[in-house]
Amino acid sequence: MKLSTRNTFKGTVKKIELGAVNAEITLEIAPGVEVVSIITKSSAERLSLAEGKEVYALVKATDVAIAVD
Amino acid sequence: MKLSTRNTFKGTVKKIELGAVNAEITLEIAPGVEVVSIITKSSAERLSLAEGKEVYALVKATDVAIAVD
Amino acid sequence: MKLSTRNTFKGTVKKIELGAVNAEITLEIAPGVEVVSIITKSSAERLSLAEGKEVYALVKATDVAIAVD
Amino acid sequence: MKLSTRNTFKGTVKKIELGAVNAEITLEIAPGVEVVSIITKSSAERLSLAEGKEVYALVKATDVAIAVD
Amino acid sequence: MKLSTRNTFKGTVKKIELGAVNAEITLEIAPGVEVVSIITKSSAERLSLAEGKEVYALVKATDVAIAVD
Amino acid sequence: MKLSTRNTFKGTVKKIELGAVNAEITLEIAPGVEVVSIITKSSAERLSLAEGKEVYALVKATDVAIAVD
Repeated sequence: MKLSTRNTFKGTVKKIELGAVNAEITLEIAPGVEVVSIITKSSAERLSLAEGKEVYALVKATDVAIAVD
Repeated sequence: MKLSTRNTFKGTVKKIELGAVNAEITLEIAPGVEVVSIITKSSAERLSLAEGKEVYALVKATDVAIAVD
Repeated sequence: MKLSTRNTFKGTVKKIELGAVNAEITLEIAPGVEVVSIITKSSAERLSLAEGKEVYALVKATDVAIAVD
Repeated sequence: MKLSTRNTFKGTVKKIELGAVNAEITLEIAPGVEVVSIITKSSAERLSLAEGKEVYALVKATDVAIAVD
Repeated sequence: MKLSTRNTFKGTVKKIELGAVNAEITLEIAPGVEVVSIITKSSAERLSLAEGKEVYALVKATDVAIAVD
Repeated sequence: MKLSTRNTFKGTVKKIELGAVNAEITLEIAPGVEVVSIITKSSAERLSLAEGKEVYALVKATDVAIAVD
């Protein structure tokens, strides 16, 4: 499957925190570089997410803001 | 300034493409790891973005989807 | 590949309009039901989108608002 | 009221799950076609959402990604 | 029509800039307070947007980030 | 720090509601004008948000929809 989503980061699940509706997933996509994702708890279960699992983080280009010092 | 935005990636501008309203900015945030951002052309000008400039890419956690093979 | 994205609609490309940076893609996901997507022009080219092609529209649950009359 | 939002789907509420801050709403917009929405719990209450209620799902075109097999 | 969208700002169109696919709309929602919106050009036409017109700006709560000095 | 984000509203925190994963923050950005934001609970803690604190609400232009009566 190919996606229009411009940004795809391969990573490993480091931490999962479950709420009532949502789940917060922390991935490591490079040594010392982490990405945090909020998805629904049912999606986390459907994807069988667990610490150590290899996953991809997907981000649309329009959802990336830029800052300068 | 501190941001609620969970994901902040320090990087360098590699490429800028300008449209009539939007601009597509490509950053390198680690060797071989690129992030593409679409912002308005007027923002790109206001931030004086240019190839080689050091910037930050900002992504809200709710804008990060996850995929598994 | 399985996605955390909750909403996946199978459809057919009906129309493609290209801008300088973005492309507007119209899909039909059911008889008389259309979905409009804005992606980058380079994504439209990378996916080889063309009228009549079978594709999927993906929407995160947090991006769906609800209205009542 | 007319909206800039390009995608409007008329549907019926099938299921509501409440969290502490958010609510997950499942709509049926065509036979066998469901849309899942996450809104705040206070919005779900303000709109008096309930199973069987007729509602609209609204999605901005920039929030629709596209995938191909 | 009532919306789940938590943030609704009444305002007046101050400026419209048209691109090939998108349009950038600037509203004034209070004396000296402006909101900029990017919508598709076809939406701007469908809503008959013009300088001086009274409109509403709608923003989902999950799309509002927070910063502190 | 300068941001590509087009919309920045200075305001004061009026109310904070905490869920398991998310927090709902209500700001007043002008007399009688409120903005509601959903951020992660850990971001609310990291920014030391509290009632009365001065903060900024940030919204990308592509996340602003427009409605007309």
